[in-house]
Amino acid sequence: MTYCVGVLLNDGIIFASDSRTNAGVDNFATFCKMTVFERPGDRVIVMLSSGGLAATQAIVSVLKQRCEATDGTPNLWTARTMFDVAVLVSDATRDVERRDGTRSKEDLAFNASFIFGGQIQGEAPRLFRTYAETNFIEAERDTPFLQTGETKYGKPIIDRVITPSTTLPDAAKCVLVSFDSTMRSNLSVGMPIDLLCYERDSLQVRMRRRLAPGDPYFAALSKEWSEGVRTVFKQLPEPTW
Amino acid sequence: MTYCVGVLLNDGIIFASDSRTNAGVDNFATFCKMTVFERPGDRVIVMLSSGGLAATQAIVSVLKQRCEATDGTPNLWTARTMFDVAVLVSDATRDVERRDGTRSKEDLAFNASFIFGGQIQGEAPRLFRTYAETNFIEAERDTPFLQTGETKYGKPIIDRVITPSTTLPDAAKCVLVSFDSTMRSNLSVGMPIDLLCYERDSLQVRMRRRLAPGDPYFAALSKEWSEGVRTVFKQLPEPTW
Repeated sequence: MTYCVGVLLNDGIIFASDSRTNAGVDNFATFCKMTVFERPGDRVIVMLSSGGLAATQAIVSVLKQRCEATDGTPNLWTARTMFDVAVLVSDATRDVERRDGTRSKEDLAFNASFIFGGQIQGEAPRLFRTYAETNFIEAERDTPFLQTGETKYGKPIIDRVITPSTTLPDAAKCVLVSFDSTMRSNLSVGMPIDLLCYERDSLQVRMRRRLAPGDPYFAALSKEWSEGVRTVFKQLPEPTW
Repeated sequence: MTYCVGVLLNDGIIFASDSRTNAGVDNFATFCKMTVFERPGDRVIVMLSSGGLAATQAIVSVLKQRCEATDGTPNLWTARTMFDVAVLVSDATRDVERRDGTRSKEDLAFNASFIFGGQIQGEAPRLFRTYAETNFIEAERDTPFLQTGETKYGKPIIDRVITPSTTLPDAAKCVLVSFDSTMRSNLSVGMPIDLLCYERDSLQVRMRRRLAPGDPYFAALSKEWSEGVRTVFKQLPEPTW
């Protein structure tokens, strides 16, 4: 499994991904699922990968190779809008699936999806996700966050806390708590967590961090959150009978 | 789907169940999933049903009919321990499955499970759940709560807050928040919520309540919880970059 989250806020976008891959509990490994395409002053595009590792790595490699094209092939550096980026990600997924998809066994069906977003000069920040079927949706004010992988354990806290006007630091904390909740219940989601906080109109990456196992900040956050919510429960009104 | 929770505490047991049944989003109805067997001073046994409604209703009916037996058939009134109750619930499930199980279509496979617990004079309170396979497990200090149905959305908050020493009112509030989180994301879990709070050694039901749609207490709880956790997030330490 995997857990990836993107949150679109008035002030920017939060991206976070776990880094555990596995083929059964007896065979797991660590791979970074976050890829950044950055040209300061022009664009920042962040991608979070979910699905089979062979598939998602191949798709990212195809996207990177096309970035080096000199023959006018559309690519992530020449895309005019984030919608055009979405089409490129979808097309690359289809190209890799065409090559590898039919050779997969049924229970290991070709499966790759991405959360991606960022900002291209001239546009506001935007956030998308592709599905395994290679179609895609865009986050908007009513639903400002997108998740992939093991989404359920970590959803309620994001539901409660995040609105488009939530600040970047509060949203980053909320996303990390969402990861902590998920990792407590699903062994196939694991640290390190890659966290990136994109500030609107900065057109560059200033805040990126990897939280490794035992990270003191993450441990403190988890502890203080648990203590904080226990205090909130004590103060809530009691049921009458 | 369904959502049922039982929590075993030093002070007693909390039971809660939703009451939505459905055969598709275009066909849903309300049925109470909580059944209470009470003989004050002797025993309180509470059952929460998950699975196909025909199956769970039939199993509860079989258990009730056996309670009227005068020929010495073991039943819920004569069971000496909660473990013996678990065997009776499991046996009734097998008996109904033997009759109805093979006639179900594959995608509507026979499926019934129960969370049940309470106290029989001479024993401490105990809490169990059966699986569809009719085997069963018992809650203990390391994992004092059991869930059935749509378990994921509502699990993290219980994980964070509840320990065996949590008070009954705090645990009841936590379970209700867990229901609220679940109902926000899964339409097949719905109000009314049946809530029962069993006090250790009382050997009778003193606190039982049904929370219907629009319940003012539940609405206040949900609102104050959301506000409370937003306040906690503001106070948590911010990540450094």
